[in-house]
Amino acid sequence: MAHKIAILGASGYTGAELVRLISQHPGLEIVALSADRKAGMEMAQVFPHLRHLALPTLCKINEIDFSQVDLCFCALPHKTSQQVISALPDTLKIVDLSADFRLRDPADYEAWYGNPHAAPELQKEAVYGLTEFYRAEIAAARLVAGTGCNAAAGQFALRPLIAAGVIDLDDIILDLKCAVSGAGRSLKEGLLHAELSEGYNAYAVGGSHRHLGEFDQEFSTIAGRPVQIQFTPHLMPANRGILATAYVKGDAQEIYSTFAAAYADEPFLDLLPFGEVPSTHHVRGSNFCHIGVSADRIEGRTIIIAALDNLTKGSSGQALQNANLMLGEDETTGLMMAPLFP
Amino acid sequence: MAHKIAILGASGYTGAELVRLISQHPGLEIVALSADRKAGMEMAQVFPHLRHLALPTLCKINEIDFSQVDLCFCALPHKTSQQVISALPDTLKIVDLSADFRLRDPADYEAWYGNPHAAPELQKEAVYGLTEFYRAEIAAARLVAGTGCNAAAGQFALRPLIAAGVIDLDDIILDLKCAVSGAGRSLKEGLLHAELSEGYNAYAVGGSHRHLGEFDQEFSTIAGRPVQIQFTPHLMPANRGILATAYVKGDAQEIYSTFAAAYADEPFLDLLPFGEVPSTHHVRGSNFCHIGVSADRIEGRTIIIAALDNLTKGSSGQALQNANLMLGEDETTGLMMAPLFP
Amino acid sequence: MAHKIAILGASGYTGAELVRLISQHPGLEIVALSADRKAGMEMAQVFPHLRHLALPTLCKINEIDFSQVDLCFCALPHKTSQQVISALPDTLKIVDLSADFRLRDPADYEAWYGNPHAAPELQKEAVYGLTEFYRAEIAAARLVAGTGCNAAAGQFALRPLIAAGVIDLDDIILDLKCAVSGAGRSLKEGLLHAELSEGYNAYAVGGSHRHLGEFDQEFSTIAGRPVQIQFTPHLMPANRGILATAYVKGDAQEIYSTFAAAYADEPFLDLLPFGEVPSTHHVRGSNFCHIGVSADRIEGRTIIIAALDNLTKGSSGQALQNANLMLGEDETTGLMMAPLFP
Amino acid sequence: MAHKIAILGASGYTGAELVRLISQHPGLEIVALSADRKAGMEMAQVFPHLRHLALPTLCKINEIDFSQVDLCFCALPHKTSQQVISALPDTLKIVDLSADFRLRDPADYEAWYGNPHAAPELQKEAVYGLTEFYRAEIAAARLVAGTGCNAAAGQFALRPLIAAGVIDLDDIILDLKCAVSGAGRSLKEGLLHAELSEGYNAYAVGGSHRHLGEFDQEFSTIAGRPVQIQFTPHLMPANRGILATAYVKGDAQEIYSTFAAAYADEPFLDLLPFGEVPSTHHVRGSNFCHIGVSADRIEGRTIIIAALDNLTKGSSGQALQNANLMLGEDETTGLMMAPLFP
Repeated sequence: MAHKIAILGASGYTGAELVRLISQHPGLEIVALSADRKAGMEMAQVFPHLRHLALPTLCKINEIDFSQVDLCFCALPHKTSQQVISALPDTLKIVDLSADFRLRDPADYEAWYGNPHAAPELQKEAVYGLTEFYRAEIAAARLVAGTGCNAAAGQFALRPLIAAGVIDLDDIILDLKCAVSGAGRSLKEGLLHAELSEGYNAYAVGGSHRHLGEFDQEFSTIAGRPVQIQFTPHLMPANRGILATAYVKGDAQEIYSTFAAAYADEPFLDLLPFGEVPSTHHVRGSNFCHIGVSADRIEGRTIIIAALDNLTKGSSGQALQNANLMLGEDETTGLMMAPLFP
Repeated sequence: MAHKIAILGASGYTGAELVRLISQHPGLEIVALSADRKAGMEMAQVFPHLRHLALPTLCKINEIDFSQVDLCFCALPHKTSQQVISALPDTLKIVDLSADFRLRDPADYEAWYGNPHAAPELQKEAVYGLTEFYRAEIAAARLVAGTGCNAAAGQFALRPLIAAGVIDLDDIILDLKCAVSGAGRSLKEGLLHAELSEGYNAYAVGGSHRHLGEFDQEFSTIAGRPVQIQFTPHLMPANRGILATAYVKGDAQEIYSTFAAAYADEPFLDLLPFGEVPSTHHVRGSNFCHIGVSADRIEGRTIIIAALDNLTKGSSGQALQNANLMLGEDETTGLMMAPLFP
Repeated sequence: MAHKIAILGASGYTGAELVRLISQHPGLEIVALSADRKAGMEMAQVFPHLRHLALPTLCKINEIDFSQVDLCFCALPHKTSQQVISALPDTLKIVDLSADFRLRDPADYEAWYGNPHAAPELQKEAVYGLTEFYRAEIAAARLVAGTGCNAAAGQFALRPLIAAGVIDLDDIILDLKCAVSGAGRSLKEGLLHAELSEGYNAYAVGGSHRHLGEFDQEFSTIAGRPVQIQFTPHLMPANRGILATAYVKGDAQEIYSTFAAAYADEPFLDLLPFGEVPSTHHVRGSNFCHIGVSADRIEGRTIIIAALDNLTKGSSGQALQNANLMLGEDETTGLMMAPLFP
Repeated sequence: MAHKIAILGASGYTGAELVRLISQHPGLEIVALSADRKAGMEMAQVFPHLRHLALPTLCKINEIDFSQVDLCFCALPHKTSQQVISALPDTLKIVDLSADFRLRDPADYEAWYGNPHAAPELQKEAVYGLTEFYRAEIAAARLVAGTGCNAAAGQFALRPLIAAGVIDLDDIILDLKCAVSGAGRSLKEGLLHAELSEGYNAYAVGGSHRHLGEFDQEFSTIAGRPVQIQFTPHLMPANRGILATAYVKGDAQEIYSTFAAAYADEPFLDLLPFGEVPSTHHVRGSNFCHIGVSADRIEGRTIIIAALDNLTKGSSGQALQNANLMLGEDETTGLMMAPLFP
């Protein structure tokens, strides 16, 4: 019998992506979809690409009978999420896609997000949802916090190296290029086609992007001492995809071996042959992350490039991967579709 | 036990799309992939987005043991296809994606393609692969000819109306917009990003596009008298998608009812509510075709718009749908994935 | 001495395009730029691509001393424009880029725009700004109403044919493809990059687009009897450009000769050799309109395709062309820059 | 009287861009255009966006009477250029846009380009064409070597800092994003719209890109000791534009002051207010380069971002700027057009 699934905040891109993925999952059934301002509408009106699916009508959160729900995906905006989740039954399994439970330390949360956390107890309970590095905890968790999409890409490119101590921890640069759907379906001038298409620019330059909170937390934890990286995101004229280019000091072959060992059994983390470079084209719409390692002409410098789809592996695909673990399903179920190219 | 599948011409976009689709089909197993100039290479080198799949090494056609193959997809260029297929075992089930067997009349073929047909006996045997209108024949066929992608879109927008006699047969205009992957992976100046992105233009204006051969054949057959439409394709700055805008003379409500009746049980042909307009966004990467009907302000004029993905429903998805029928599989197996949006 | 120019509504795309064009015009000097909600900001903050220019600080309209202004471009939203222009000195030369003064008949205006006109006297005074067809009137006018960008493209493709009586007036279809900047810098979900890029769709299908009011007015006037065309606009994943594909009944050679005669001396209307097709690529950023004529395979049917840049020839370039006439400048001054390709 | 100009290799993008720019230059007249394989064709057939211009028919190089030419732009492929230029009259002023004369040392040339230089004497004579840093030499030169487009962007972001000694010379990283027209109009699979649009990837990773030869030469020269930077170019789904993100060790305010002093009088190098970030959108089609400086959160680390149009400031605009100097024209003539946005 299928696990019963609710999705809160189904009218955004990550909500729609969850529906797309779950529609191919044999073990899950969507029983509720919420979207406060669009309650009463059909999903087909909000996302016509899903019109072939039989889906519940969009409702308000308080109209959902959570006693009939096995797991709830929460795709609400930051800050709203912590309030809503606080009010949900404390036995309900939850995968949160917002930023609200990614940082474990309330002081860190306040520093990066500018307000005190409204549910510090839940914050303590939440498990960081980077599946490949928190598998056991996620399988046992009630509340899992999905990572930032940039944070996921950056960690896939750097975590094993920091853990293995094969790179200089004080000189890590992450130049990241993110497609526009990472900013969601919000009405901002900078997200208009005419403002984005055919051009590109950096943003949050110099260390103000909130995903740095996750990098600091995770890299410092595994290094056992404070680690701060440089991180410059760029907005790219494309709808899906993150390309993370990391510049590190360390031996390229040793770095390659470290990845090869760390990711040998990973179904979704795919290390390319040494010297090959990944492209966002080759992961679009899929849950795969391609990772390439190249030596620089300067001795002791290495470039690592990771490519993933921000809406899939960077967000909703990761969420489903975590949900599979939490529900006792095979981790890869519903996630092995091939990328869409061209 | 899975049906054993060969794909000839696997290094083009339709070949790659077949592999993508079959990778999610539980009843099919790819046993051979040919690509003459790339024989010896792995598919992952030619199409890195497929690198997670265990696939046979690319080979030459004559290296394939066809006695071990249940069905062969032929994704070769026009003209090559008829020669290759002539040399295959005459018991092998074949779905051809080229233009070589779409026209039943050798004279029509020669008129549109400029050379006499090299395999007129096979041409006679071939069944036209527009699944929804040739189901029984396809299920019983040995050789099925996939339709042109534009031809598929145009027929979904017009066939039931011609069959039902609800429109003026002498005044049909089809203004079609096709994405660039319809032209394949060939090296032509006009297909370069710099020549296409941010601009658009018509081509083959005035009635020289070869898919008109299919329209003439099919529409005349169902009308029982010669029917010629006007057809102007445009090249659009997008990778996937066809939007076919048809202008007809006939009553919009009667036209809508005709579609509603004709497509009521079709799993992939999706008639939108009256007056709604489809978008290529909402079918991308899927096997669905969305169809919208709108009344014009001028009495007795109706606009029909059909949207599909040229590589899926317009080509490889259609091919798989036909293969399912030929192999006794459920027609929709492997084809119910949701579109990718955004 | 340079003519002194004010631009009202300088924070939109047509305002910025006017500044771009005027910056290369030796006879004009911008003395005032208004933008109500952005008053006090520099143009460089609103449009960083103009930061090399010395421009007045954005102000409110009522801060402008119109006694020091020779000509005022009004790039305000529809409906606002008629109110603002009513309050300007009645001796000020004005080129309005909104829809407010395009229709001469108050009843037509109300029918298409849904509200009674607030300045019917001005409406009477305004000259329709399709330069090539109203030159003398524009040169003598005080108030000129810029045409709709789609309306301009459609008229360039059809006016001479209607005037010459060489086509069937009851069977004209205009299938038009417009880039997204035609919708302005407004925050609408459908204008987001993620919603538009890589896809396309029709809108205002069936005769509800307001530019039909202009077609009806102009075509009926020159035909001397009511003429209604079918007009279906499509939104294209590109920033600039309109491609208008017209389907008419008439002899292609006669049509071509009609254009050749009508446009022989036009500096911006460029008739391509018979059978060639224009592309929006080839007019981008310029004031040119390329026009192609092709015969259909069906006797007596002709396809006319016109390409122009909606922001330049379709809007701000046309406005400057009209201003040149009104100020006694050479009509082409500041407008002969070559298109930007690729 | 106008200077007489020839353009060799007029059928490529940089050739067409030269024609676009020169068409607005009051002091230059194009008297010859060569394109070997397209000799006999009109420019309007090769580049329809230039069809409004009266231009010489394309010819073969040996058909040009160079005694009637004041200055020759050479937009030929690498390696061809050195052979052709060797055969030109040695009094002819030449601006070469190829890579052939960028490196002063024959050994460097051979190391980066893989073959011995065919015209080492000319190589010695050539002046490196980065206008802002070689003004006097260029004004006096007969042969000027246009820089690489990436090389120009990188040098605008780094030269003053290296010259002033305000950054660590051993730790410079340049992560560069280049639009596709930088690769020219050549038929390569990776340049097809379907392969590029909506995706992005790095290339020449690890120090193999030839523009590194220019960086090494120039940076080492001004530093007075060997300087090697890390340089990773990425191919972006856009037609025009380079965004160069440089990561350096040095004080952000000191770096900003250094730029402010160095570029104070530069007409085309535009330093943004501290902390602002440039976008390729804001320089498209223009000869401007926007430069932004931001402090990283890590003390002593600074990010510099430069944006320019690869075909204009990165190539043909730079060439015209140099030609202006060589011909005694004002340096900015024909180059002050505003960028095209959106």
